[in-house]
Amino acid sequence: MIYLDNAATTAPVKEALERAEKFYAENYFNPSAQYAEAVNVRREIERAREFFTELFPEFSLLFTSGGTEADNQAIFSFARRGNAVTTMGEHPAVENCFKKCKDFGVEPRFARVEKDGSVTEEELLSLVDEKTSLVSVVHVNSETGAVNDINALAKAVKRKNPRCKFHSDGVQAFGKIPVRLGKEIDLYSVSAHKIGGIKGTGALLFRKGTLPQSYLFGGGQEGNLRSGTENVLGILCFFYAAQELKDLKVRAEKFLKLRELLFSSLDPEIFTRISTEAGSPYILTVSARGMRGEVLQRMLDLNGVIVGTGSACSSKHPHSRILKACGYPEDVLDGVLRMSFFPEITEKEILTAADALNACAREWKEKL
Amino acid sequence: MIYLDNAATTAPVKEALERAEKFYAENYFNPSAQYAEAVNVRREIERAREFFTELFPEFSLLFTSGGTEADNQAIFSFARRGNAVTTMGEHPAVENCFKKCKDFGVEPRFARVEKDGSVTEEELLSLVDEKTSLVSVVHVNSETGAVNDINALAKAVKRKNPRCKFHSDGVQAFGKIPVRLGKEIDLYSVSAHKIGGIKGTGALLFRKGTLPQSYLFGGGQEGNLRSGTENVLGILCFFYAAQELKDLKVRAEKFLKLRELLFSSLDPEIFTRISTEAGSPYILTVSARGMRGEVLQRMLDLNGVIVGTGSACSSKHPHSRILKACGYPEDVLDGVLRMSFFPEITEKEILTAADALNACAREWKEKL
Repeated sequence: MIYLDNAATTAPVKEALERAEKFYAENYFNPSAQYAEAVNVRREIERAREFFTELFPEFSLLFTSGGTEADNQAIFSFARRGNAVTTMGEHPAVENCFKKCKDFGVEPRFARVEKDGSVTEEELLSLVDEKTSLVSVVHVNSETGAVNDINALAKAVKRKNPRCKFHSDGVQAFGKIPVRLGKEIDLYSVSAHKIGGIKGTGALLFRKGTLPQSYLFGGGQEGNLRSGTENVLGILCFFYAAQELKDLKVRAEKFLKLRELLFSSLDPEIFTRISTEAGSPYILTVSARGMRGEVLQRMLDLNGVIVGTGSACSSKHPHSRILKACGYPEDVLDGVLRMSFFPEITEKEILTAADALNACAREWKEKL
Repeated sequence: MIYLDNAATTAPVKEALERAEKFYAENYFNPSAQYAEAVNVRREIERAREFFTELFPEFSLLFTSGGTEADNQAIFSFARRGNAVTTMGEHPAVENCFKKCKDFGVEPRFARVEKDGSVTEEELLSLVDEKTSLVSVVHVNSETGAVNDINALAKAVKRKNPRCKFHSDGVQAFGKIPVRLGKEIDLYSVSAHKIGGIKGTGALLFRKGTLPQSYLFGGGQEGNLRSGTENVLGILCFFYAAQELKDLKVRAEKFLKLRELLFSSLDPEIFTRISTEAGSPYILTVSARGMRGEVLQRMLDLNGVIVGTGSACSSKHPHSRILKACGYPEDVLDGVLRMSFFPEITEKEILTAADALNACAREWKEKL
């Protein structure tokens, strides 16, 4: 099986999961308890926290149940008045929080995106005014791989309104491409299971002094910002998986080459490129114009190649909301396939996958 | 080591964790994806859900990040207007949600508790009126083990106000004592790591037709009630651990005997009983009157016996809020120790623990 849907989730890094399990099996104690064994668990959680905050020394970090919770907590903490600005290229975890903001009297504003899913400074700024309380722009678009220059965007936003907060959903960026959070970034969401951790853990990075509101009330864990017994196994697996991620730049270059190899091996008569070359090295989105992505996906699955599609596959919304916002016509939207990389994948597998993509699409074409 | 702090958390059931890990390592796919491998993961989650709802056929279930989140979602969904009634014997996950309700204009009301931590029907009803939107009563008190007859209480509450909802925090009951949810119970919170699952997973049972509000917004998982990629490993470990819990009645009888054996082996000159005989078989709370529980706890820890204390051990609140509400004087509150059971524990271990408790307390006494 060749797994090319790593933007949806990754296989857990074996060593990281085993290490976390081993620790947990012996150290199952409640980290809030006072005996030495429990203090030991608390310390390991703090080691995990320090590992991440050392990467971003101006930030504090709270562990959450995932990227979605981090996005929810960030947005509902700071989209408190006036309006809040985001883009049409956001993950539903951001999009739906913004829609929900209306219930609290905050006007959500959605910036149009370019053909690749990114947002321009001009378009974003056109929506920001003195009443804007929060701006949220995804770092790497989950469907196209487009990379927003969040530091430049945040700088421009703060120039126009220095009081508003700037959040970015970094779920598809963190642990994949080198991430630098400039001093205009206030909040940044990350997820464990997109980088070899397990599902059910994420984190919200927040600039020191920019305290989010409590999201879960109870025993006061996570500095009283997120109550509930800590997901020790998930947090440690996140920590250990992240420790394995060295040389992100080298890794990103490797995947860039594989991405281009994959695209150049696809039949140009069939596949139209959606992801741009400037996008994330980990995502290649294409369209088999005039075909149905989800049918091709199933054909590929039978041939041992797992890819993503661009749509939520619900009958109500047959097309990807994001790609629609990018301005693609219906026949392109129909045929969207997303190939996304992460763990050790080889050139040979990429070529095998390309062959399968070409073969399945040709088989479809012949049947028409 | 003899571990007697199972009300704080339990060791994971080895077989359950291994089974969940094995499934997850091979089936790491995103349950929202459309290919066969992902559908397989979704099916296993649904098998887990069905296992639990078969125990409570009139209820639906949504998986949460733990008991705290289940409590938060239940309370904030239904304490929407007028007043909301709970007891002074609640876990902080309920207590602090009720306190937070004030911010939304809902008046929280806290019923006084008896000496054992339970609430009487009379006291509870005295706070319920036609403006009550929610009543929440813990099933098993986490500090004393007192069991509230939630079915009788809910019935009485509904007789007085049929429109209000009744929630119970069942974290210390579910999987330990036989639980029957009568037709007046609307919502019930449970947790995985208190019964051999892992931390970071719980569930909210809600009566069919009594739909909670969405708590996390995003991809629409859990029937749009709780977005975010499912914590597959945690959910399956919860499922598999719960499958191991057969013959709860027999098991409860076993622990009842062990609890009584433990208490009868304690030096009556030193230890005052707080838990009553009618309480949960899994919890024995005592006080080494005039001594400091947390110091005894550390002495016991050094002797290989892990027990809980009754207090949050913060300098701000040196005593347990719940036990204070039960009406105990300061010298009793100082010396509180909680012994709680769950996995396979033997008579011999109980006797060893009792010896250690007596010896440590005597050592303390002699030093005074």
